[in-house]
Amino acid sequence: MLYKSVSVFVIGTELTRGVIADKHCQVIASQLTQLGYRIDRMVLVPDDGTIDAVIRDCIDTCDVILLTGGLGPTSDDLTRSIVASIAGVTLVRDQECFETLYKRIGDRIWGANEQQTMIPQGFEPVPNPNGTAPGFKGFISKGDRLVACSAMPGPPREMDPMFFDQILPWLAELRGHDDFSRDEYSTFMIPEAKLEELCKSVAGEGIQWGTRFQDLKISLYLVGSSKEARDAMAERLQRLVGPSLVVPGEVLPLDLLTGVLKKNHLTVSCAESCTGGYAAKLLTDEAGSSSWFWGGAVTYANEAKMALLGVKEQTLATFGAVSSECVLEMAEGIRSVSQSDVGFSVSGVAGPSGGTEEKPVGTVWFGFSMKDRANQAVKLQISSWGRDSVRRKATVISLILTSLYINGDDLLDTVRKWQYI
Amino acid sequence: MLYKSVSVFVIGTELTRGVIADKHCQVIASQLTQLGYRIDRMVLVPDDGTIDAVIRDCIDTCDVILLTGGLGPTSDDLTRSIVASIAGVTLVRDQECFETLYKRIGDRIWGANEQQTMIPQGFEPVPNPNGTAPGFKGFISKGDRLVACSAMPGPPREMDPMFFDQILPWLAELRGHDDFSRDEYSTFMIPEAKLEELCKSVAGEGIQWGTRFQDLKISLYLVGSSKEARDAMAERLQRLVGPSLVVPGEVLPLDLLTGVLKKNHLTVSCAESCTGGYAAKLLTDEAGSSSWFWGGAVTYANEAKMALLGVKEQTLATFGAVSSECVLEMAEGIRSVSQSDVGFSVSGVAGPSGGTEEKPVGTVWFGFSMKDRANQAVKLQISSWGRDSVRRKATVISLILTSLYINGDDLLDTVRKWQYI
Repeated sequence: MLYKSVSVFVIGTELTRGVIADKHCQVIASQLTQLGYRIDRMVLVPDDGTIDAVIRDCIDTCDVILLTGGLGPTSDDLTRSIVASIAGVTLVRDQECFETLYKRIGDRIWGANEQQTMIPQGFEPVPNPNGTAPGFKGFISKGDRLVACSAMPGPPREMDPMFFDQILPWLAELRGHDDFSRDEYSTFMIPEAKLEELCKSVAGEGIQWGTRFQDLKISLYLVGSSKEARDAMAERLQRLVGPSLVVPGEVLPLDLLTGVLKKNHLTVSCAESCTGGYAAKLLTDEAGSSSWFWGGAVTYANEAKMALLGVKEQTLATFGAVSSECVLEMAEGIRSVSQSDVGFSVSGVAGPSGGTEEKPVGTVWFGFSMKDRANQAVKLQISSWGRDSVRRKATVISLILTSLYINGDDLLDTVRKWQYI
Repeated sequence: MLYKSVSVFVIGTELTRGVIADKHCQVIASQLTQLGYRIDRMVLVPDDGTIDAVIRDCIDTCDVILLTGGLGPTSDDLTRSIVASIAGVTLVRDQECFETLYKRIGDRIWGANEQQTMIPQGFEPVPNPNGTAPGFKGFISKGDRLVACSAMPGPPREMDPMFFDQILPWLAELRGHDDFSRDEYSTFMIPEAKLEELCKSVAGEGIQWGTRFQDLKISLYLVGSSKEARDAMAERLQRLVGPSLVVPGEVLPLDLLTGVLKKNHLTVSCAESCTGGYAAKLLTDEAGSSSWFWGGAVTYANEAKMALLGVKEQTLATFGAVSSECVLEMAEGIRSVSQSDVGFSVSGVAGPSGGTEEKPVGTVWFGFSMKDRANQAVKLQISSWGRDSVRRKATVISLILTSLYINGDDLLDTVRKWQYI
C-alpha cells in the first residue's frame, strides 16, 4: 500500500536545548497510528539547517514526511527552502497567502514577513488562521516514488488546528480511509492521567481514544467502531464524572456560561478573590461581551471586599474570607452594585502556602446570586498541582457552576459527582 | 573539541504509536546544553530494530550517542545487540551484573532476564538500582574518532536516576567543562519579525542570536564573540527600542512592576476596561501578592465605571470611555476607593470591531495616579494582531508604564520610542 511509513520532524532549537518540551510528537503519532500509518521516526532538530541532512538520510525509505516549525519570519526559519531544495524545485510566492497577510499587516509585510508567503513550487499552501505563516503540502518525487510532504508551523496553537482540520483529513485520504469519523469532546478539570484511567474503564470494543491538553480543558477524541458505540462510551464516561464535565464538541468553559446568558438574555458580574480577575478576563475574551458582562471586582485584600462589595467586617472576622458567608456577601454585593441579573463570587486558598488544617490549599468557595432565586454557596476541594493550577481550575469551575445555577440545577448534587478534580 | 555534538535516541513503539508521551528529551537536552553540548537530533523510534539504520545514518557526524529504552528482557529489546553490532564487538556477560541480578531474582534469571546481563565488549555496565536492566557506557571506534555511547533503560523512574547520578557526571568529565557563555534578555511587545530585523541591524561580529516566543514576552539569546561585544550589541538594541523593552535576564513583565513596588513599599490597585481583569490576574499570579496588591475593578460597562470608580457621566458622554479624561478619572477613582498608594487604569478599543477613524482598533489609553505626584495619561496605538493580542499587549504595557511612572520617568518620551509595538 502507498503512503504507509511516516517520518516526523519537529524543528526548534528551544527543543534541542531543552528550554521547552515537545508537544507535537504524541498528538501526531496517535492520530496517524489510528489511520493505520506506521511512524518510523520522530526527530527533534535545531533550527540551524541540520534538518536538511536528516531528511536526506531517510527520504528513500519513507512515504510521508511531516515537519513542524521553522516557518517563522526569522533567518533561522529554513523549512521552506530546505524542502524546496530536497524536492528540487524553487520557492515561489503564493499570491493568495501574500494578499491575506498583506490585509493583516499592510506594508509591514515587506521585510522578514514576506518570506512567509513563499512555498515550494508545486506545493499547495495550507491556510493558518492563527498566525502569519501558512503551511504547505504536496509531493516530493524520488525516482518512481512520490513522498507526501507537509510542513506546519511550530506553535501548538497554530499547528494543532492546522493538523486536525487540514493535514489529517489529507493523510486519511492518501491512506485510503473513506471513513474518517472521529468524535470530539471537551472535558473540564479532570487530570489527564485520571481521564485515561476512566476511559479505559468505560472503553467500547474497537474504540481508540486520545487526549489533548489545553490551558482550560482537555480535548478527548474517540475513533473507531460505530457512532452508536462511541456515543455509548461517552455516555458511560459522563455518568461517571457528571455530564457537565464532558461535553460534545470543541467547547470552551466560557461558552457554557455565555450560551446560557445569551439564551436567557441575562447580564452577569463577578467578584473574585483568589482567581484575581481571571474569570473577568475570560468573560471579556470574546468581542461583544459587553452585551452580557457588566464588570467585576477583584477584591484581593479584605478591605477591597468591604469597600467594593460591602462585605461586613464582622463576617470576615468571624468566618474568614474563605467561607460560605463571605462568598454569599460577595455575590450579593457585586449584583447589587452592578444591577446585573446574576452575580457570582470566588474565594479560596490558592497556595502554595497559606493553607490550614481546616482550610487546606485548594479549598475554594463559590457564591451565586440571582434575582428571584435563593442565593447559594458551594465549596470544592481542588487537588493542588500548584497555585496556577488551583486558580485555573477555580476559574473554570466558577463559570460552569454559574451556568448550572442559572439553569436551576442542583449544585450540591453536581459537585458531589466531581470527585476527580 | 572532542565530545561536542550529541544524538539522542529514545526507543519505544508506545512512543511512535502515540500511546505515551516522551519524557526524556527535554531532561537530557537541558542538562547537556548546560554542559555546553550541542544536541543535533533527538529521535523517537519504534523498538523493532529501526534504530540500527538511524544510528548508522548519523554516527559519522556526532560525538556522543545516548540511547534510552530497548534494554528489557523481551525479544523486541534490541539495543544491546545493535550497539554491539555497530561497534563491531560481541556481547559478553558481565559477571557482576549477573550476580547482582541473580541475588534479586534467583533461578528465574535463566531465560529472558539473562540477556539483560550481557553488554557490548569493552563497554562498562552502569548499575540500575530501580530495575533489572543495567545500562552501559563506553566508546565506539570510528576510524580515528571515538564516539562516546551510553544506553539507559526507558522507564523514567529507572532512567532519571541513572542519567543524573551516573551518565551526566561522565559526560561532564568528557566535555572538560569549557566556558560556554550565553546571555539572555527579555523583550516586551516587539513583534518577533521586527526583533529579528532590529537584531540584524545592530549585530556584532560573530554574535548569533535566537528568540523564543512566550505569551507575554519574547526571550532573546545572544551567543558567541565576547561578553563585551554581546553587551554592546544589547545596548545598541536598547537604544533603538527603549531600555524598558529589552531587559537582561529571564524577567516577566510583572517582575518589573512588583520590583518597584516592593522596593518602595507601595501598594497598587487597577481599574481595567478593555483588558477585562488581565492585569489584576497577572498581579495575583505570585503568592504573597496581597502585600502589594489591594484589588481592582473590572469596569467593562460604562455604568461599571460610574458605579465602582465614580467616573462622571458627563466625562463619558463628552469624551467617551477611551479618552485621557476617562482613564484619569478611573485611576484616581480606584486609588481613592482603595486607599492604595498607586492606581492605574486601562481603556481602549480591543476589537476586532468597534474602531472608528479617530479611535481605530488598538487605540488604548493608560492612566496613572499616585500620592504626591501629578496624575498622568498616555495613549498608545497598538498594532492589531487580533483582540487577544491587543489585550495582552495593553496589559503588559500597563504594568511597565506603571513601574516607570512610579520611578518618575518621562512617560511621554518613553512611549515615543516604542514605535514597534
